[in-house]
Amino acid sequence: MKTAKIVFHGENAANFRQGFETLLDPRHQIVDLSDTLAGPGEREHYESADVIVGIKLNREMPAPRQASLFHAPAAGTDAIDTALLPPGAVLCNCFGHEHAIAEYVMAALLQRHVPLAQADADLRQQRWTYWAGRPTALRSELGAQTLGLLGFGHISQAILARAKAFGMRVTAANRSPIHDERVDQAFTLDQLPAFMASADAIVVSLPLTAQTTGIVGAEAFAAMRPDALILNVGRGPVIDEQALYDALAQRRIGGAIIDTWYRYPTPDQAECAPSRLDFASLPNLLMTPHMSGWTSGTVRRRQQTMADNIRRWLEGQPLSNVLWRAPQ
Amino acid sequence: MKTAKIVFHGENAANFRQGFETLLDPRHQIVDLSDTLAGPGEREHYESADVIVGIKLNREMPAPRQASLFHAPAAGTDAIDTALLPPGAVLCNCFGHEHAIAEYVMAALLQRHVPLAQADADLRQQRWTYWAGRPTALRSELGAQTLGLLGFGHISQAILARAKAFGMRVTAANRSPIHDERVDQAFTLDQLPAFMASADAIVVSLPLTAQTTGIVGAEAFAAMRPDALILNVGRGPVIDEQALYDALAQRRIGGAIIDTWYRYPTPDQAECAPSRLDFASLPNLLMTPHMSGWTSGTVRRRQQTMADNIRRWLEGQPLSNVLWRAPQ
Repeated sequence: MKTAKIVFHGENAANFRQGFETLLDPRHQIVDLSDTLAGPGEREHYESADVIVGIKLNREMPAPRQASLFHAPAAGTDAIDTALLPPGAVLCNCFGHEHAIAEYVMAALLQRHVPLAQADADLRQQRWTYWAGRPTALRSELGAQTLGLLGFGHISQAILARAKAFGMRVTAANRSPIHDERVDQAFTLDQLPAFMASADAIVVSLPLTAQTTGIVGAEAFAAMRPDALILNVGRGPVIDEQALYDALAQRRIGGAIIDTWYRYPTPDQAECAPSRLDFASLPNLLMTPHMSGWTSGTVRRRQQTMADNIRRWLEGQPLSNVLWRAPQ
Repeated sequence: MKTAKIVFHGENAANFRQGFETLLDPRHQIVDLSDTLAGPGEREHYESADVIVGIKLNREMPAPRQASLFHAPAAGTDAIDTALLPPGAVLCNCFGHEHAIAEYVMAALLQRHVPLAQADADLRQQRWTYWAGRPTALRSELGAQTLGLLGFGHISQAILARAKAFGMRVTAANRSPIHDERVDQAFTLDQLPAFMASADAIVVSLPLTAQTTGIVGAEAFAAMRPDALILNVGRGPVIDEQALYDALAQRRIGGAIIDTWYRYPTPDQAECAPSRLDFASLPNLLMTPHMSGWTSGTVRRRQQTMADNIRRWLEGQPLSNVLWRAPQ
């Protein structure tokens, strides 16, 4: 059997390390390396690795000499400079976060309809505020609403499956055409205002590209239903920062649930506001710290993807999730 | 066309009155009556009605003379004395609350996994507590868990459809055998301890009968996984009051979400504790005031059931949801 040296590079990769050896033949060597590669022997291990698990490759780092598989344990690979991969090497990524994100989205949507916390606080004071049988206690149903999916990749399809089980009507907008019988109405990105007007809640999961940056701007917000929600689980700048703030501050829409942002903590500054604008002052916003995909299930599924790809690579079989092949 | 006098009796029925006329031929007469029937002409209207919509019929009330359809706008009909129905009359009930209850259950389960409120409070203070990429921020997934359905009627089947969309494993226990491919493991009520041990969350939706009263007692709690949840959306006394309190107070289980109770408000006492035991002092309990099924969707679906049955009855077609036919 061909054996391999597999390195896990940095703190992010380390999240996927625990138990990884149980998914592979024990004869492979697995080495854990720090982000800086400054420890004894780390640089040499990195340069001589057959497989690198990591999210970063740039000119300030040692050049991998013989790695033929570079596996990101995440979907995004923008910090990996593919020009630095050895000839013939393959870059793969991982999904597996779509189920976690779908749970986040459904939890956030359901809590707008089922007032559990207030009901509990009231009943502890012997007040039966939401008791069935009175018109004033009637709540709305998520299932009676229309969900709009902006982007139609892994994440939207995981949300779609759950929304349909609740009986929701679902619309979707995407760059490429949508062929899915479960989608009740499909739009192209050219029809964005009509799409934005089609739903009671819009979930943004588009990747960040030149075309999508700021695509949800003042015009898109103006097209939304006045009581509709917007959710962002994609990348912050897909929604224009100022337009989002204005739509919420001026109550042009019903509210927002925002998980992806415009500013993030840095190694030097662990605490920071997620925008130059004062979103924390807005009451019609649920703001969370880019957490939607981060579950033990995501870690387990990504470990499985990477272990499967390493095994296939050693056996000369086709890999999944291939993003790039370096020229020979 | 045969026309009918339809009376809506009392405050509960009045919840289903708004817009009801739009579901029927306008030539029918619809009369709204108070609970006491003490207003001018109310008694005569009740006695001469062809269709009665209400939840109560007893010997202290006027006897309906010619009603051939008595329709409860709810599932439970225990306050309707069928011996007082005119010869040949039919008693029907309504469901339609199962989708509302399933939303309540999924909202309550999801909020145990997705810490939205805490994440929001923290990020407003610039703290990125649940930020992806660190092992301490990993949350669990509902989809990785097993759900146990105690009782397998309308409510459980609505919950099942949603739980399966989340990828959950589902077990169920019922008096009559369960034939549903989506159920991963089925039990009879004789196998209650094994069933109680089979899941991470048990949802009780059994009706209250002599056989089910207190069926979830100390033995059942002892069989549960130590971190499992119990939910009651059926009838309070199906779970033994003292055994539930003890299991929570002594932390023998992970927690409870209780919507149906042991004591309810009365016309004389609008505020009261839901039990003789001090459940409000327990932190590992979410307590809600019998609200799970009470949505605008439930009202709409029940209106449709009743209007459809009234139309069928006038046309001599078979009715749905027939519970009882009074002897001719």
